[in-house]
Amino acid sequence: MKKILLKSALVETECDKTSRKDIVIGDGRFLKIADAAAPADADGAEIVDCSHFAVLPAFYNGHTHAAMTLLRGYADDMPLQKWLQEYIWPFEAKLTGDDIDVACRLALLEMIKSGTVFFADMYWHRERTIKVVGEMGIRAAVGVTFAESLMSPEAIEGNFKFLAAHTGESERVRLAVAPHSVYTVGETLLKRCADFARSENFMVHTHLSETKKELEDCERQYGCSPVRLLERAGMLGSNLAAAHCVHLSDDDMKAFVDSGATAVLNPNSNLKLASGIPPIDRLLRAGANVALGTDGDSSNNNLDMHEEMKLAALLAKVQGGAETLPAHDALRMATVNSARAYGLMDAGEIKEGYLADCLLVDLKNERMVPGHNLVSNWVYAADSSCIDSVICNGKFVMRGRHVDGEEEIVREAEACAKRLAY
Amino acid sequence: MKKILLKSALVETECDKTSRKDIVIGDGRFLKIADAAAPADADGAEIVDCSHFAVLPAFYNGHTHAAMTLLRGYADDMPLQKWLQEYIWPFEAKLTGDDIDVACRLALLEMIKSGTVFFADMYWHRERTIKVVGEMGIRAAVGVTFAESLMSPEAIEGNFKFLAAHTGESERVRLAVAPHSVYTVGETLLKRCADFARSENFMVHTHLSETKKELEDCERQYGCSPVRLLERAGMLGSNLAAAHCVHLSDDDMKAFVDSGATAVLNPNSNLKLASGIPPIDRLLRAGANVALGTDGDSSNNNLDMHEEMKLAALLAKVQGGAETLPAHDALRMATVNSARAYGLMDAGEIKEGYLADCLLVDLKNERMVPGHNLVSNWVYAADSSCIDSVICNGKFVMRGRHVDGEEEIVREAEACAKRLAY
Repeated sequence: MKKILLKSALVETECDKTSRKDIVIGDGRFLKIADAAAPADADGAEIVDCSHFAVLPAFYNGHTHAAMTLLRGYADDMPLQKWLQEYIWPFEAKLTGDDIDVACRLALLEMIKSGTVFFADMYWHRERTIKVVGEMGIRAAVGVTFAESLMSPEAIEGNFKFLAAHTGESERVRLAVAPHSVYTVGETLLKRCADFARSENFMVHTHLSETKKELEDCERQYGCSPVRLLERAGMLGSNLAAAHCVHLSDDDMKAFVDSGATAVLNPNSNLKLASGIPPIDRLLRAGANVALGTDGDSSNNNLDMHEEMKLAALLAKVQGGAETLPAHDALRMATVNSARAYGLMDAGEIKEGYLADCLLVDLKNERMVPGHNLVSNWVYAADSSCIDSVICNGKFVMRGRHVDGEEEIVREAEACAKRLAY
Repeated sequence: MKKILLKSALVETECDKTSRKDIVIGDGRFLKIADAAAPADADGAEIVDCSHFAVLPAFYNGHTHAAMTLLRGYADDMPLQKWLQEYIWPFEAKLTGDDIDVACRLALLEMIKSGTVFFADMYWHRERTIKVVGEMGIRAAVGVTFAESLMSPEAIEGNFKFLAAHTGESERVRLAVAPHSVYTVGETLLKRCADFARSENFMVHTHLSETKKELEDCERQYGCSPVRLLERAGMLGSNLAAAHCVHLSDDDMKAFVDSGATAVLNPNSNLKLASGIPPIDRLLRAGANVALGTDGDSSNNNLDMHEEMKLAALLAKVQGGAETLPAHDALRMATVNSARAYGLMDAGEIKEGYLADCLLVDLKNERMVPGHNLVSNWVYAADSSCIDSVICNGKFVMRGRHVDGEEEIVREAEACAKRLAY
């Protein structure tokens, strides 16, 4: 793989400080970050003039359902149960494996164009998702989804076999154990998932405490909160990434934080579905690991991590005061915190030795001007239009706002969605 | 002025319905909207193939401080008083008229690139703002700002003379009477502004009930709420556009709604400064006119009306349920409602006879795919990167994402801000 030299790029060197650096990328990692690259370090590298670019960490999406792109805008502005039963589930029932390919390609295109290089997925047809991630050059933690009410006993055993064999894992793809939620997976299977993940060294990805109804139903069925049920099942721990976490009592919060689990917040989806405002300030004060995700396109309705980052920062401030979750920390939630939630311990920062995932952000874009504060501009003022190029694993996956094959991906998605909807 | 024929554009014909239309633009207005334009109607027109574009209403920004672009990112994540006293005011004190030109050009560039063709401004150096609006081809209601604590008696008389002479008004520029707020303008001057605006037929643009401190101070000084003080001063009426309206009691809300005034909400700014969440659902239930604005770049930190539109829709839902403020209505808040708040009664919709202000939105952008629902995609999934072109008053002000002179505007703004900040 050819080396890349990002020449004279603006980077954040510490909180609220920036300087110009030469960044040498090779073997999928940041090899060298220096005021001026030594000729030996940059030998044979493609030189990219970054005098009008900032190099910023790419986004890591801690919770999504990639293949739901085809349902974008299919049904909005209605109560959750009507939305699911009359629109989402009937549409999903028609999706074939080939449709999932098309849907995933659209999702990954959308992610790349908005600066995301990793996503934690939870859906069906995992081998299709794995294939598309391979094609398109980004990373994923593909959830092997357990939903007892929708699966045969054989399918559940099949999940464990798939995981035990590490099927489809590669440099850019890892698997996660993904019990859907406490309302679709019983306590026994939750416990088996937890034990399996611990002994086989997998991350666990689940939905947790998303709606008040979930809390009420759990209380009725199990006599405890969803957090306490996961604790009973042995699932609460540092290998747990729990999406949503909208409704947490102080008691829940303490148990959750003490376990070292990560709360993956999805504020756009939670507001749009009227589930509630995630308790960002309370989570931060309690010392929780907090990461961000977009949820699926049917409830957001996009996969843009920048929107989650800005919204999280705004909501945190209105909850806790203007000083809460400053720009630098909001950026970390959407990058390094999400990466670490899925075991990528050397990702999400522009740092020697780390995975070479980054964005080239156009400093001549009017939203990035004036340059009083790079990270403030990026978090509060920018949008996806400021991203010129995206590098994942040391290779360009978007360059000059163009992704290889994007016209074909869009055309196929449009045709596929039309066929399914009518 | 040459006619334009937007050929075969996707337009919303009624809520949740779309069809392909030919749109003839001439004399700054939508002359004809038909399934197929008659040759006589389109005679001599420049034909623009819109087969992969939707034509959507452009945005009308109901509250901003355009020239504050140069303060973007200068100070964030701190309490309001520290922010104002230690950063914003000292920086502003250095701004000359020439700096305001530079700042306004950057603001208008930012507005155009994010689809905005009108803004209601409140700042100093109004003649500079008026000049730049003239240059750059969009519209404004330029507020003639009253802030008693900061102005000499002569300057206040100067304001009334400026207004009485309709100085600088033109096809695209109108003036508004802009008493800054109840905490910077005393009751006597508020009353004079209200009387003057009514007799001279001006709109009034003010800040209202933005923070709890404003309410407490008003209660202490006047023994009533800011809304009731405006009522006492005769300012509450259908010619009032009141920015923020974050803290309204039920009694305030009733008086406000009964008067026919418009609440111009600025959710990004209110959250970022931790002022509070605007009571969108309560305002809607009370039957208020609700419009949207961005506030200034120092508190948002951009002028992107699309962000306000989506955030307003999300906040309304988490307040009132998922059915609250559906996409179609959120779009109206950011377009026709904001236009009408400033007396533009024939603007903000794609409608024969209306002002020819519109956006060409790229239907091949991945965020607009699949096309189950145009307006849902636009409100919930899109961002500024989906806007290909912007038309104001029948002329392209952006085409293929390019604005004439943008490189120069950005360069000058960067240089000017550097000079001022250090």
